[in-house]
Amino acid sequence: MTTKGNAMASASAQLKTPKGTRDWVGQELRIRDHIFSTVSDVFRLHGGVPLDTPVFELRDVLAGKYGEDARLIYNLEDQGGELCSLRYDLTVPFARFLATRTDIKQIKRYQIAKVYRRDQPAISRGRLREFYQCDFDVAGVYDPMIPDAEILRVLVEAFRGLDMNITIKLNHRRILDGLFAVSGVPSDKTRPISSAVDKLDKAPWEEVKREMVEEKGLDAAVADRIGAYVQRRGTMGEMLAYLASQPEAMANEEIQAGVKDMQLLMSYLEAMDVLDKISFDLSLARGLDYYTGLIYEVIVNEPNQVGSVAAGGRYDNLVGMYGKQQIPCIGVSFGIDRIFTILEKRQKRMAASNLRRNADVYIIAAGGKEFDGLLLQRMAIARQLWDGGIQAEYAAKVKPKLQTQFNASKDVPIAIILGQDELDAGQVRLKEIKEDGEEKDRGLLVSKDDIVEEVKKLLSR
Amino acid sequence: MTTKGNAMASASAQLKTPKGTRDWVGQELRIRDHIFSTVSDVFRLHGGVPLDTPVFELRDVLAGKYGEDARLIYNLEDQGGELCSLRYDLTVPFARFLATRTDIKQIKRYQIAKVYRRDQPAISRGRLREFYQCDFDVAGVYDPMIPDAEILRVLVEAFRGLDMNITIKLNHRRILDGLFAVSGVPSDKTRPISSAVDKLDKAPWEEVKREMVEEKGLDAAVADRIGAYVQRRGTMGEMLAYLASQPEAMANEEIQAGVKDMQLLMSYLEAMDVLDKISFDLSLARGLDYYTGLIYEVIVNEPNQVGSVAAGGRYDNLVGMYGKQQIPCIGVSFGIDRIFTILEKRQKRMAASNLRRNADVYIIAAGGKEFDGLLLQRMAIARQLWDGGIQAEYAAKVKPKLQTQFNASKDVPIAIILGQDELDAGQVRLKEIKEDGEEKDRGLLVSKDDIVEEVKKLLSR
Repeated sequence: MTTKGNAMASASAQLKTPKGTRDWVGQELRIRDHIFSTVSDVFRLHGGVPLDTPVFELRDVLAGKYGEDARLIYNLEDQGGELCSLRYDLTVPFARFLATRTDIKQIKRYQIAKVYRRDQPAISRGRLREFYQCDFDVAGVYDPMIPDAEILRVLVEAFRGLDMNITIKLNHRRILDGLFAVSGVPSDKTRPISSAVDKLDKAPWEEVKREMVEEKGLDAAVADRIGAYVQRRGTMGEMLAYLASQPEAMANEEIQAGVKDMQLLMSYLEAMDVLDKISFDLSLARGLDYYTGLIYEVIVNEPNQVGSVAAGGRYDNLVGMYGKQQIPCIGVSFGIDRIFTILEKRQKRMAASNLRRNADVYIIAAGGKEFDGLLLQRMAIARQLWDGGIQAEYAAKVKPKLQTQFNASKDVPIAIILGQDELDAGQVRLKEIKEDGEEKDRGLLVSKDDIVEEVKKLLSR
Repeated sequence: MTTKGNAMASASAQLKTPKGTRDWVGQELRIRDHIFSTVSDVFRLHGGVPLDTPVFELRDVLAGKYGEDARLIYNLEDQGGELCSLRYDLTVPFARFLATRTDIKQIKRYQIAKVYRRDQPAISRGRLREFYQCDFDVAGVYDPMIPDAEILRVLVEAFRGLDMNITIKLNHRRILDGLFAVSGVPSDKTRPISSAVDKLDKAPWEEVKREMVEEKGLDAAVADRIGAYVQRRGTMGEMLAYLASQPEAMANEEIQAGVKDMQLLMSYLEAMDVLDKISFDLSLARGLDYYTGLIYEVIVNEPNQVGSVAAGGRYDNLVGMYGKQQIPCIGVSFGIDRIFTILEKRQKRMAASNLRRNADVYIIAAGGKEFDGLLLQRMAIARQLWDGGIQAEYAAKVKPKLQTQFNASKDVPIAIILGQDELDAGQVRLKEIKEDGEEKDRGLLVSKDDIVEEVKKLLSR
């Protein structure tokens, strides 16, 4: 790095982060780390193996995977050598990993990493061009619905760890597509109609029907038949009973296969004690084309909920697209930004204390006229505390003012006050700082040797 | 994502990660996480605030910061909008952050993130184009050498946490530059001569002298005077006594200022109990131009050491380059890849078990002819264990073979064996699995209600 002579050039540079990106600092990152460690702990509990892939992939690896959205991919400049692009999600890199590692036939992998989309950003609503995804996927051939049940169990444990009360909306692509067929939807209209149905969580049926009929050219009678099915939701038991009572639907082979899966799943979810979190919702369709079986979406049971906080499904054909090996997969992606928004609101004091240092102890020197600032003594006490695993700070001044030190100690729970007389007697004074910055009392005189122990006692209260 | 019709295009794609990048999986990431959490804990103990910046910056922000190395910067393609580049290090993004956040006058920040350099990769030696940096920096105006001492203390605590025995090599830019001046180095040759001196840790003096004289056109007598100084190292006390005994050197104002800093630092390091880790080494020069005071490098006290595992120094003028605010800084960057290499070697069993699932318990179903596989019972036991925070797995088969289950349990410490008779009596069998896969005995019959407790007892042994 050469700094000389470039100062002027740099001073004129626009000083901001690129469009759709932002810095994250302090308490924000502590909340994010809390989310990451909570969900990772659950992934590991279920045998999850962590994976980290490069932030950019060969451009060919991403080609043909995202349809129209491919225009949102960030490309790296051609500087000679390979053509690369920033990753758009974590699913395609995982599929590429599996296709390159043909020694792996089964894996439960998790990955928490940023992805990049040149979308129109809406920072106030938390939509950024650089954002985190957090994925857990089970790849491999297993008996039907066993990994599917475990993924739902993982969701329940993760949100329990985050102290969030959730409902998991479930559906099955083969049941949904079968109901469309039974209702009379031409097969080339299945996906467009499916994407209209997916809007039923935000829009009333009349609006969805209008989209089907007016925009997508569906016969109104066909739309009404669809409406009779997809507006139904309930427990797994209720919905399986409802489907069993529909002879026209049950004659369809796709629906039969889906119902068989759902019956099996219900028995597994009962054994895993998660059945009470499930809503079997025939309107759930999910946008992505590649799902082939069970699909799900997690919503928070709170007023003003922010949309789904996790979602996923079974995709049995994606890895095979690379032509190396065919591995069925099921996965889930956690919506870190939405979870973050909910947890951030809970931390009311955050805005004011985003740069808070999170110290346990602030070491203050007090003295009269010949006061020399006691810097070495403050350092030695800090060293004792650090050795004891206690966060300790002191003013980085040789002779700090008493008032400056008390001000700095206000967002720290404990102050240790050093005076020459007490130090001569081998003692220091410990004070608890109250929330409003007032000290409770004159504090406790303790021996220098007992500082770590005494601080731990106070902190554990 | 649209998959149909693109299968052929994708199947022909080259399946690998881009040049100079790689996937990381399983045990490798567990080692890396261990490094990150160990050093982050120390940063937080010292009041460190985490920072996360975007992976790309406006191209102008990086311009003029890296001299010749700027050719190694990855640019994003111009897809309309702003011109951006991937970050090259974490120091310039931190300086940009401080220049944009003029409300921040003092901060201890840490950042652990990947950086990108289009260098010639040498994967076998661990040199990649995408690699981690881990930086801790103290920004702000403080009394001299107080943050400098704390940074060295942070280094000692971090490597103690990693169980690595280290020495910190120290020098001071003003002493070093003063010694060059006193020896007769023309001021325009200071940095080239400095970079030659920096090679003394790898090359003998004669070779360094040859570079100075033959390549850099220095007078041989001047080189010899430099040699007499820079081949000296010792404790801080020894080296300060040595410098004090050199009247020619002590007449130089730069050296006087540097020596005053080092005396102050020595007293602080004594109070912080890190003096025994320090080697004051006059040959330490560090490559970067922007250092203005104390510089340091951490080496591991082991044969076949891999070079420095952390390094840094004081840089008081970098933030001011953006023309917004002038903030003196001191920082250190941990060499994650080298630390990783050392810790990886310690884990001898790693290579074979990189994809190990790290499960605590494997649940096995055993039975005779009418055996139904006990899947729901295995799931229910797994649920109990997960609720107790215990990692549990079972075969994802309705009727798994006994031998297959025993094979799968071999790298797991405990097996729980379910048989219909025992289950009818409300019991299961617990077995410890030995390293070589042999079971110790027929196992322990325990009540289903006590499983979590009994497993925890076995695991804590």
